[in-house]
Amino acid sequence: MKHIESVKNARVKQWKKLHKKKEREESGTFLIEGFHLVEEALKVEGLVEEIILAEDRSIPAQWNLDYVQLTYAVPEVLKAMSDTETPQGIAAICKIPRSDEVTIKPSHRILMLDNVQDPGNVGTMIRTADAAGLDLIILGEGCADVYSSKVIRSTQGSLFHLPIIRGNLTEWIKKTKEEGFPVYGTSLQNGVSYHEITPPPSFALILGNEGKGMAAEHLAQTDQNLFIPIYGQSESLNVGVAAGILMYYLRG
Amino acid sequence: MKHIESVKNARVKQWKKLHKKKEREESGTFLIEGFHLVEEALKVEGLVEEIILAEDRSIPAQWNLDYVQLTYAVPEVLKAMSDTETPQGIAAICKIPRSDEVTIKPSHRILMLDNVQDPGNVGTMIRTADAAGLDLIILGEGCADVYSSKVIRSTQGSLFHLPIIRGNLTEWIKKTKEEGFPVYGTSLQNGVSYHEITPPPSFALILGNEGKGMAAEHLAQTDQNLFIPIYGQSESLNVGVAAGILMYYLRG
Repeated sequence: MKHIESVKNARVKQWKKLHKKKEREESGTFLIEGFHLVEEALKVEGLVEEIILAEDRSIPAQWNLDYVQLTYAVPEVLKAMSDTETPQGIAAICKIPRSDEVTIKPSHRILMLDNVQDPGNVGTMIRTADAAGLDLIILGEGCADVYSSKVIRSTQGSLFHLPIIRGNLTEWIKKTKEEGFPVYGTSLQNGVSYHEITPPPSFALILGNEGKGMAAEHLAQTDQNLFIPIYGQSESLNVGVAAGILMYYLRG
Repeated sequence: MKHIESVKNARVKQWKKLHKKKEREESGTFLIEGFHLVEEALKVEGLVEEIILAEDRSIPAQWNLDYVQLTYAVPEVLKAMSDTETPQGIAAICKIPRSDEVTIKPSHRILMLDNVQDPGNVGTMIRTADAAGLDLIILGEGCADVYSSKVIRSTQGSLFHLPIIRGNLTEWIKKTKEEGFPVYGTSLQNGVSYHEITPPPSFALILGNEGKGMAAEHLAQTDQNLFIPIYGQSESLNVGVAAGILMYYLRG
């Protein structure tokens, strides 16, 4: 059993770098923290490469670690790796899944995000998409990185429950339309109230940036753009809330 | 025109204390920051007592300051009063509205919160309730203080658009039921799927704590408890998202 005694260990330094997007992309790995997230990640075959456990903690009996390397460390190492105030004494290194293996099926319900920048919003939308039974999430240009620790925390494990890929939205919208899906954009200004849509068996729904909404070029590509009526005096809804209302409405 | 030159001014010290709940309650005032929020607050008669403006900023021409004291200050004062990283150079002292003046009308739609602790969640729900055209929000025991800066920011001005009161939920549920309202609780375990409810002309909807949900004693008081079906593998929805789905569904 490996055991790391110091926060100055070279591997610890390397793991800490995974808080940066550039390092995640170069290494093809990301870091997760906490028992709940590691447990959820272990349910996905081949995702977890290595678990780092504080020596004063233990692995729950029901976990299967047959294909996972387990490394013990002094609690200070887990603290150094963590960006939360109350580290739980467990972290894991996971492989970033390959997005070229994702295929769209005719029955799919898809969420696309166009330049959604806030990590909490992206994480919450992934969690809601999972709850609403969606099948695929596509993050377009400008979105918060799904493997940042704040997005991961906000998903509460949902990022391991459905495929999430990054891609060029222009191409994905085109591709999705070719498959015969209705593609719905969202816009405060134009479009139809979502109530007027009869929930379809499959769809793609696109949410846009917190301040600016969807890019005009993507709004122009969709089959129809939807809005949520504002009955009071607020100017808009939080994008994560809007996504929840629309996903639950459209899935019928 | 008054002008404050130093962050050590006694009034500045007093204003900074308004970041604490105890001080807000003792003074009956709260602090808001930024041009958008101050503009929204000015639309409510008698709410804004005083505006503090950095000397390098100016008041928009369309604002009516007939009944508001305007104090200029060096920019450092506004920075000292702010808890954001990018203060906008304007703040205002507002009166906490009296809750004993609120009356329920038969046509009302009401949101009640039971022990919702996260300021961002409380703020987002206030914003959504405003958007959905609700008429009243009642915050029960354990909720984040609506006049904390994080809640205020998250509401994006909606806290000035509808009455928000703090109260004893047991009493308010009883009172609301006596008025003939259907009162809906929310619960993951029991209850009926919200789809089974026909949107009523008026209602009270209760959302509960992020981790523990609603208190059992309040669940027992309602007419009916609703849940939102989870179609995927996530364990639950964010409470702010759940509130949005339910408010928009129930308002029909």
